[in-house]
Amino acid sequence: MTFAISKTASQIAPFRVMKILAQAKALQAQGRDIIHMEIGEPDFASPSCVHQAAQNAAEQGLTHYTATLGLPALREKLAQFYDGFYHAKVNAEQLVITPGSSSALQLVLTAILNPGEQVLMADPTYPCNRQFVHLLHGEVYSVPVTADSQYQLTLDHLKQHWNPQIKAVMVASPANPTGTLIEQAELLKMAQFLAQRDTYFIVDEIYQGLVYERPAESILAHQNLPQNVVVINSFSKFFGMTGWRLGWCVVPEHLIDVLDRLGQNLYLSAPTLSQYGALAVLESDALTELEQRRQIFQQRRNRLYAAMQSAGFTLKTLPQGAFYLYWDVSEYTQDSERFCAALLQQTGVAITPGTDFGKEAGKSHVRLAYTNDRIEEAVQRIQGFVEQYR
Amino acid sequence: MTFAISKTASQIAPFRVMKILAQAKALQAQGRDIIHMEIGEPDFASPSCVHQAAQNAAEQGLTHYTATLGLPALREKLAQFYDGFYHAKVNAEQLVITPGSSSALQLVLTAILNPGEQVLMADPTYPCNRQFVHLLHGEVYSVPVTADSQYQLTLDHLKQHWNPQIKAVMVASPANPTGTLIEQAELLKMAQFLAQRDTYFIVDEIYQGLVYERPAESILAHQNLPQNVVVINSFSKFFGMTGWRLGWCVVPEHLIDVLDRLGQNLYLSAPTLSQYGALAVLESDALTELEQRRQIFQQRRNRLYAAMQSAGFTLKTLPQGAFYLYWDVSEYTQDSERFCAALLQQTGVAITPGTDFGKEAGKSHVRLAYTNDRIEEAVQRIQGFVEQYR
Repeated sequence: MTFAISKTASQIAPFRVMKILAQAKALQAQGRDIIHMEIGEPDFASPSCVHQAAQNAAEQGLTHYTATLGLPALREKLAQFYDGFYHAKVNAEQLVITPGSSSALQLVLTAILNPGEQVLMADPTYPCNRQFVHLLHGEVYSVPVTADSQYQLTLDHLKQHWNPQIKAVMVASPANPTGTLIEQAELLKMAQFLAQRDTYFIVDEIYQGLVYERPAESILAHQNLPQNVVVINSFSKFFGMTGWRLGWCVVPEHLIDVLDRLGQNLYLSAPTLSQYGALAVLESDALTELEQRRQIFQQRRNRLYAAMQSAGFTLKTLPQGAFYLYWDVSEYTQDSERFCAALLQQTGVAITPGTDFGKEAGKSHVRLAYTNDRIEEAVQRIQGFVEQYR
Repeated sequence: MTFAISKTASQIAPFRVMKILAQAKALQAQGRDIIHMEIGEPDFASPSCVHQAAQNAAEQGLTHYTATLGLPALREKLAQFYDGFYHAKVNAEQLVITPGSSSALQLVLTAILNPGEQVLMADPTYPCNRQFVHLLHGEVYSVPVTADSQYQLTLDHLKQHWNPQIKAVMVASPANPTGTLIEQAELLKMAQFLAQRDTYFIVDEIYQGLVYERPAESILAHQNLPQNVVVINSFSKFFGMTGWRLGWCVVPEHLIDVLDRLGQNLYLSAPTLSQYGALAVLESDALTELEQRRQIFQQRRNRLYAAMQSAGFTLKTLPQGAFYLYWDVSEYTQDSERFCAALLQQTGVAITPGTDFGKEAGKSHVRLAYTNDRIEEAVQRIQGFVEQYR
């Protein structure tokens, strides 16, 4: 008897970071001292105001399903947040609350992509983006990008690669795994270029707010934005609510109804107490706490960058947001998975191989997440480790 | 400029119950007295031990992502629960925690179904099942069932309809919208028949525990169960944790790895505090409280059945579980949507048209959910309403 797995599912790649994490935890259980720089998750717990708000809601018995599009009060408050924080006028109707930004990405791609159609994205990129397209039987049109464009897509890339099979282009600013940004003027030109070609532009802003030496910015602040722009966001990163599984997307009006119908079927509603918690994290007291956390991440970025430079490592980009440093290790290896496995085994420093994020340069790049405060110690260990490759 | 919606997404039907709910709420806002019997959700809030456990976890800072397959402690405890409650030996490894049973259904179907392959299910059935298959570009093989088989599939149906294109058969016991069961001996024969034909058997037990005048039963209690059986379950119904968005599936070993990879991409992990809450709801104190709730639902079922009979209505089945009564209204109408809309408008009683659940008999059936305690009053209003159809 053979009970088969579907062809598409059998080809879905695992997160390599999860394998590194499992190995790191196994070593830790053996008593080894591990420095975790593999995980894309702030080391802080969620702000205590979130816990309090969730508890209050539970005590009032507010534990039932919400509307699929989200608690009306949360959609309203998030619209006000866009106004105050990003100077962006967003209609609450266009805000769709989802169980994490993973669901938002899946929902939006499911709403627009037919089998065989292409989605253009950078290599490197957030790994799930490719998998969502595969699951919908679409095709990933992968454009290799380098440090010359801060590992980001540009208008020139779109001009060079756009074709009529492309239904959507996906970018992230700040990006995972690179922490780099796309300037707003460039983003707007890309949106307009694609709008003229009936192509959606999906802008992942889940690390927005976590930007350094510049204000937080959203493409939604532009007036007369074309109707092809979809913004993905999350309460996980800037707001520090990872385990609460809450995200959202901001969509043009013509997508609201189809997202509602898809959401009803795919997940019914986002977690209720997380939505009440999110109401609290949008209050000014919480935002003050989040600003302090942002400053800590900025200091860590500066410390990591300085330590890496002092260690004699070549860094091609200065990350401007998120909590990642993408490091070209081609002078040491063309096998980043083996490099990361050996680094963990020999030194106890856990980092992520670039192969999670792309084929092209993934084998010669790694990602360091500064979600751990033992930065200088980690760099020292790495410095000792790479001696064997010199 | 036209920014198109995908063909499949444009064909996804909305939940008609959500439209009824919205209309009922609008009437309520106008000051009308509404009796809600449309929603498939217990009217109780989640047990207070769940709130306490979630709060304790939050205070300990346990708000980060969990492993994709779920908190190891929860998987272990759920395995013990299967032993104590169902006398079923389940390996914790086979238990996959998901953000709601919607995700479990999506995950399992994504793991097994290729485009063009068929999934056989009853008409009527839980509406999402059809939509999940459509989204995967599979085909729904719908078998009309009647009160003769308690609106359930039987081994005879499978013998009559099975063909090599069928990759999986889906059943639910107790079922939504009918509240009827499939006897365990029949379920086992169906599983074995399908195993001999390399066909998966997906058994939805999300209403298990909520059964009346008989013990809770799981197909997993059978020894030597074939490797084609997948069980779907949820903390929403029996455990009363709807808004916490937590479900699970029990899968044969060869599916664990692919579900892990799919889950990593589709949702990362289920809500963390919901998982800590679920640990508490599996304790014996909570189970005592849930047993009291089950008795309340049983009393309500008895009251609803008796009131409907006293009102002179013909009832073809006695629901044995869940909190639904599926009512054949063919002597009054062949347009259940219009019937339900008029009933709501004229009497304030909100119920669900059968068209949410199936094509065949959906137009002449409606679903009453006894998730509201004003049962006799509702039946009186319905009795007055149908006078105009006699």
